[in-house]
Amino acid sequence: MADRVYLDWNATAPLRREAREAMTAAMELSGNPSSVHAEGRQARKLVEDARLAIAGAVGALARNVIFTSGGTEANALALTPGLRRASGPPVQRLVVSAIEHAYLDGLRAALDGMPPALASVMLANNETGAVQPVTEAGEIVHSAGGFLHVDAIQALGKIPFDLKALNADLVTLSAHKIGGPKATGALVLAEGLLGLEPLLRGGGQERGHRAGTENVAGIAGFGAAVRAATSALDQNAIRLEGLRNHLESGLRQTPDVIVFSDDVTRLPNTTLFTVPGLKAETAVIGFDLAGIAVSSGSACSSGKVQPSHVLQAMGFGPKIAQGAVRLSLGWSTSEADIDRSLEAWRKLVGTLLKGGDETLLERF
Amino acid sequence: MADRVYLDWNATAPLRREAREAMTAAMELSGNPSSVHAEGRQARKLVEDARLAIAGAVGALARNVIFTSGGTEANALALTPGLRRASGPPVQRLVVSAIEHAYLDGLRAALDGMPPALASVMLANNETGAVQPVTEAGEIVHSAGGFLHVDAIQALGKIPFDLKALNADLVTLSAHKIGGPKATGALVLAEGLLGLEPLLRGGGQERGHRAGTENVAGIAGFGAAVRAATSALDQNAIRLEGLRNHLESGLRQTPDVIVFSDDVTRLPNTTLFTVPGLKAETAVIGFDLAGIAVSSGSACSSGKVQPSHVLQAMGFGPKIAQGAVRLSLGWSTSEADIDRSLEAWRKLVGTLLKGGDETLLERF
Repeated sequence: MADRVYLDWNATAPLRREAREAMTAAMELSGNPSSVHAEGRQARKLVEDARLAIAGAVGALARNVIFTSGGTEANALALTPGLRRASGPPVQRLVVSAIEHAYLDGLRAALDGMPPALASVMLANNETGAVQPVTEAGEIVHSAGGFLHVDAIQALGKIPFDLKALNADLVTLSAHKIGGPKATGALVLAEGLLGLEPLLRGGGQERGHRAGTENVAGIAGFGAAVRAATSALDQNAIRLEGLRNHLESGLRQTPDVIVFSDDVTRLPNTTLFTVPGLKAETAVIGFDLAGIAVSSGSACSSGKVQPSHVLQAMGFGPKIAQGAVRLSLGWSTSEADIDRSLEAWRKLVGTLLKGGDETLLERF
Repeated sequence: MADRVYLDWNATAPLRREAREAMTAAMELSGNPSSVHAEGRQARKLVEDARLAIAGAVGALARNVIFTSGGTEANALALTPGLRRASGPPVQRLVVSAIEHAYLDGLRAALDGMPPALASVMLANNETGAVQPVTEAGEIVHSAGGFLHVDAIQALGKIPFDLKALNADLVTLSAHKIGGPKATGALVLAEGLLGLEPLLRGGGQERGHRAGTENVAGIAGFGAAVRAATSALDQNAIRLEGLRNHLESGLRQTPDVIVFSDDVTRLPNTTLFTVPGLKAETAVIGFDLAGIAVSSGSACSSGKVQPSHVLQAMGFGPKIAQGAVRLSLGWSTSEADIDRSLEAWRKLVGTLLKGGDETLLERF
């Protein structure tokens, strides 16, 4: 698929060369990291090297990195009952933000006068790219004696952050959004956090936090991807933002186009847009037929294109929320990719807005 | 480590060529199987092809294969509350066999006159290789209105089986014991089973049974490994049993050697043995220094060598249980590997039995 333009990096980034090489090398090792012989120790070393890389990237201690089978598992592990610090009572409630934006007053109200809560927020929204005021959220949560979990999956490798600056007690990371392998992630803990309940019990791996033979190749690939993604972060972000702005200037030539969350700080690589009357499902198919991979917002739901729950939570009606198309860029995205995408959009938009769904669906 | 002899296949098998090729190809695909564009559909196809291969290998329907992050997760998912069939009450109890051997009368007694139970057994023990009377266990469990979960991780690719012949309602499989990648497994369900509670909720993948972006490369490697491991199973088993018998004949030349479970049907590739006075930890180190990777029984516990709980449950005292060494063979094991291992054993055994631990540990 050499002629394709891939603008769906927020769903899955292509594997980075560094990650591929690390995985290929790891795949040659037969050892189980829990085995004491030489093969086992070699496998263990790869896992611990990756743990150091990931800890270093987010300002944590290596021993507080828990490898998981991806972001979903890390998030599930984070939302544990009984979380506590050496001093202080354990968590008794969970607070999750539906509207990933402008929620600080709501958060303050939800925590006021209540027992300690675990609040879970995204650092950057996967659909709009909007960066949330997480540091301020952490201050509010900590003042109320609670704990802050930050899902930083979309932000990793795109904007700099660390646990302390975020006021985060737990942070979820995922490899496949930064050019690492699918199905590898991590939950990273602030030092001194106690009471985390494992989801998977048995072999005692990951300091008892997560049983199961380690995904040695996946973890090695994750470590290599983190190193690559965070080493030239600022330069890459500036380049991506330039491309993204070029893309959005082109889109705005269509009358009535809406670019969501363009009035707040966003990741440099993400554009969520629509035009009243557009259907996202048809638009995705139209782009696909033109050789361009884009998304209709979240790709989490097994191929189903549904109205964006993020936009609905932001107050947009289902008609607008059903029409949102996400274009997300990455390190290999070129100026030519953006030009081709805009050209395709200009050709498609008339058909799409005239309800030309059936014509497109027939060709699909 | 070209000169090493790897006799620890029950902990991790080396990656099969077929699995490596499938994974390498899958690693080039950037698509998320939940995305509707061409890249997403390519990734989806790999996952569904592997699902067919795994279903076919154990006599199940493809839609009843749930991919997981490995055997530990599949086992945890199986031990779900509320499991039921379309007719009949849900599970209310869990029965697990501690002694993985000669337990049918105990099972009958545990189920007699009680509400429906989920009984969980291993098809073949990971330490001794002993094959359990699972079909008979299934009859007993079903007569009592219960459900049978079979952990078939060690048996897959070594002895033929299918869900119906085993009377199994749920079967756990793992890729890395058959030459697939680490951290990929599956829970396979009999048709008509209801009430399985997901451990991971969110994106709705795996028909709602297991959320999280699929491990496309791992799953593709698992499918390829299953095809390879089950295609010439009988011939490979005969060859392995010949090598294993040769190995055990050599070991028996040491006075008082005990080969565990040699009076029952075992997997063709596994030998668990000891000599009174032997310490497994030192023996593993001694073999390792001689270039041979062996195990001290289960390698599940983060590098810790502990007395085998299987042998303790079988009635052996801690001294014997602390001395058990496991040698497990695989498709690339050669006659020369066995000869080298026996030679190493003959050189080591005197030192090991005279308490020469410190000398070995110093060199380690």
